Amino acid sequence: MRLTRYFLPVLRENPAEAQIVSHRLMLRAGMIKQNAAGIYSWLPLGFKVLRKLENIVHEEQVRAGHIPMLMPTLQSADLWRESGRYDAYGPEMLRIRDRQDRDMLYGPTNEEMITDIFRSHVGSYKDLPLTLYHIQWKFRDEMRPRFGVMRGREFFMKDGYNFDLTKEDALHAYNRHLVSYLRTYERMGLQAIPMRADSGPIGGDDTHEFLVLAETGESEVFYDSAVTDLTFGDREIDYDSVEQCAAIMEEFTTKYARTDETHDPALFDQIPEARRRTARGIEVGQIFYFGTKYSDAMGATVQGPDGKPTPVHMGSHGIGVSRLVGAIIEASHDDKGIIWPEGVTPYHCGIVNLKQGDAEADAACDALYQSLTALGLEPLYDDRDERAGGKFATMDLIGLPWRITVGPRGLKNGVVELTSRRTGDSQELPPEEAVKKIAEIYGDMHSSEHVQMMGTRSFHTYI
Amino acid sequence: MRLTRYFLPVLRENPAEAQIVSHRLMLRAGMIKQNAAGIYSWLPLGFKVLRKLENIVHEEQVRAGHIPMLMPTLQSADLWRESGRYDAYGPEMLRIRDRQDRDMLYGPTNEEMITDIFRSHVGSYKDLPLTLYHIQWKFRDEMRPRFGVMRGREFFMKDGYNFDLTKEDALHAYNRHLVSYLRTYERMGLQAIPMRADSGPIGGDDTHEFLVLAETGESEVFYDSAVTDLTFGDREIDYDSVEQCAAIMEEFTTKYARTDETHDPALFDQIPEARRRTARGIEVGQIFYFGTKYSDAMGATVQGPDGKPTPVHMGSHGIGVSRLVGAIIEASHDDKGIIWPEGVTPYHCGIVNLKQGDAEADAACDALYQSLTALGLEPLYDDRDERAGGKFATMDLIGLPWRITVGPRGLKNGVVELTSRRTGDSQELPPEEAVKKIAEIYGDMHSSEHVQMMGTRSFHTYI
Repeated sequence: MRLTRYFLPVLRENPAEAQIVSHRLMLRAGMIKQNAAGIYSWLPLGFKVLRKLENIVHEEQVRAGHIPMLMPTLQSADLWRESGRYDAYGPEMLRIRDRQDRDMLYGPTNEEMITDIFRSHVGSYKDLPLTLYHIQWKFRDEMRPRFGVMRGREFFMKDGYNFDLTKEDALHAYNRHLVSYLRTYERMGLQAIPMRADSGPIGGDDTHEFLVLAETGESEVFYDSAVTDLTFGDREIDYDSVEQCAAIMEEFTTKYARTDETHDPALFDQIPEARRRTARGIEVGQIFYFGTKYSDAMGATVQGPDGKPTPVHMGSHGIGVSRLVGAIIEASHDDKGIIWPEGVTPYHCGIVNLKQGDAEADAACDALYQSLTALGLEPLYDDRDERAGGKFATMDLIGLPWRITVGPRGLKNGVVELTSRRTGDSQELPPEEAVKKIAEIYGDMHSSEHVQMMGTRSFHTYI
Repeated sequence: MRLTRYFLPVLRENPAEAQIVSHRLMLRAGMIKQNAAGIYSWLPLGFKVLRKLENIVHEEQVRAGHIPMLMPTLQSADLWRESGRYDAYGPEMLRIRDRQDRDMLYGPTNEEMITDIFRSHVGSYKDLPLTLYHIQWKFRDEMRPRFGVMRGREFFMKDGYNFDLTKEDALHAYNRHLVSYLRTYERMGLQAIPMRADSGPIGGDDTHEFLVLAETGESEVFYDSAVTDLTFGDREIDYDSVEQCAAIMEEFTTKYARTDETHDPALFDQIPEARRRTARGIEVGQIFYFGTKYSDAMGATVQGPDGKPTPVHMGSHGIGVSRLVGAIIEASHDDKGIIWPEGVTPYHCGIVNLKQGDAEADAACDALYQSLTALGLEPLYDDRDERAGGKFATMDLIGLPWRITVGPRGLKNGVVELTSRRTGDSQELPPEEAVKKIAEIYGDMHSSEHVQMMGTRSFHTYI
């Protein structure tokens, strides 16, 4: 993309309304614009990141064998009356009356609707196990929406639902979700720690929240520092393997890590003192097993192997996709702006032309742009007629991990400059070497799972 | 995808509520489920088609130089009061009051919001031309929702908005959209004819609707049969070229083609009688030029070259993405079920195992599945333990364009059967030849635009 043809309305000033760094940087980098309290438009740069996260979530869910579909944003109140949650849910549920005077609501979650779909279409234990999920806009009418997309009212969320014949099968689904979530967050450059949590209005006993450590987190968390040494890495997982999933569950949840809701000071004190940590965390996902709560209430049974109607065991599993954009920025920025992890960056590298209009510099930038594009990479080329300082400031603010700087002086020596946004380190090298280096960085990232998944090598997310 | 691991709840019976064939077939093929009047869940097969259409629209919009973003579903009433449309819009607008008693609405369209974004961020004619678009769920509280996704209440739509300094520039944007739409529909296997139309509540003089001819269409249309001979084909278009876009506009809109709203019997009678056609059409898109209607009302000006504030010229342009799924089926089906055009099919081919459990047949199906997947194609393998008749009926119903049938008798002679859903023609050939043939069919389709666009060869839509 050439900046002169893009829509990137960066702000010079810090917006007064933004209390936390991700909100401030998303506004300043031209990623979002508030349309009403807690309701945002995703401007092109923000939308591109959101879409990348959505694609990563889809890829990892499909890899785990979960099936994508899409439920609508508006729901009939009737289903919620069946489960008993219509009256139980507080004023955070946005209630709507349509022109026929029917009670509707903007879905905050979809347990009722998916259970209704299940009971309408599935009749036999032979059709189990089944996990359906969707990524859809939801609404929670927060009293005080704030922190930008971190606590918005209209938010984008993946929610998935497993249906199993037995508790044992459902707990495998629970573990499988935990594994797929660990992998998802790592691809986004995040460490999200599963912590034992409270189930709240969803119900059920077993639940883990995934928290990203950040000073601005809404939850106080307590953990054994050994949990932060765990990484998922490049493991090959057979998601059908009960043993493999259980082993990873155990590895990642045995060490102490809890939110303040479930914190147990006596247990915490058993950790060697040097490893005891108290910090703040941002919740970016949660998994639940709640057994037959909804299937009992709504009559979602299957014919079991014994021929008798058996209520299915269920769980639900969520990832806050729009909130993750904020969480990633909270976890990865400096005083100049955002620092995108390679896995989610909206553009793979920036190209800064120090002397726009100089025939040689323009030609070199065009050639770089072509070479990168031909490799399937997406550069963002700052081709504006502006001073170098302004171009650098914009690139630092929007946080692309790599920048190639092109100027007449370097070109005389046959070199351009390649700079890491994270470390600030620069090196001079011939343009074709810079291209090769960037292709390697992203190629390594994509070489394993991505290619396997796609059957081909592609960096693109279509838009 | 293996059918035993999928969720494809096909119905044997014709659902009583479905009055038109696309609604009936979408229900029977397990593509959608109604959750409330005019509100549907997209079950896995339906969602996969919807997502393919969304990706095609994105690709063609990006190709034309239009910039993707995303606006929220809910809007504040205030903006609509500014434009005067809050009161003007009838009961089809779903009005909502939030917990703070603020007037909100579920957006039926986004002229006001995009104009607000524009005026907040763009100040100079130097930032023009600019075209922003999004693909988002919208709501129209129809009195009598019907015909499935063809006239639903919650619907998925691409709407784009151009901002230009002059009427002349805006008319180029209009033509550019027409070109990109022609290309979009053709990739979906549709002939959508641009017809002079009425602008309705959007306003403006210049507008064309795109109509797909179908018996069940809601509009009566009148046209010169010569328009149906026009095809866009493989043309290379420079979307910046005013002349090229104008020439295509002229080519596709000069011959008589009008809806009943703008029909002129005197003009129609000038067509040679043998070429006069009256038919019905389904509206799948519309483009508008409405000048400064919204920029005047909402103060969206830029500093012109003369330094003076100048209201921008605008247009808006829509494609009904969810409605298109129905329109494609209306245009492409037979009495056995859907016939997907190759460009939008949810799976590239089906594999039917005539004798599940037979070691040789199972192995041959697995090998076919692997080979197709390795080429980046997505097969749907019916690996259920069911009779051949049931498997064929399901494949015919869900309409994959190609089917490979594998059975012990053919394998003895080293062949499988490759069948076209459209023609019903079958041929016997070795499995590797069948794979090659299918790869060629889709490879040719993708070879030009797709690869250019993606920088690589990929058939996948990620989910």
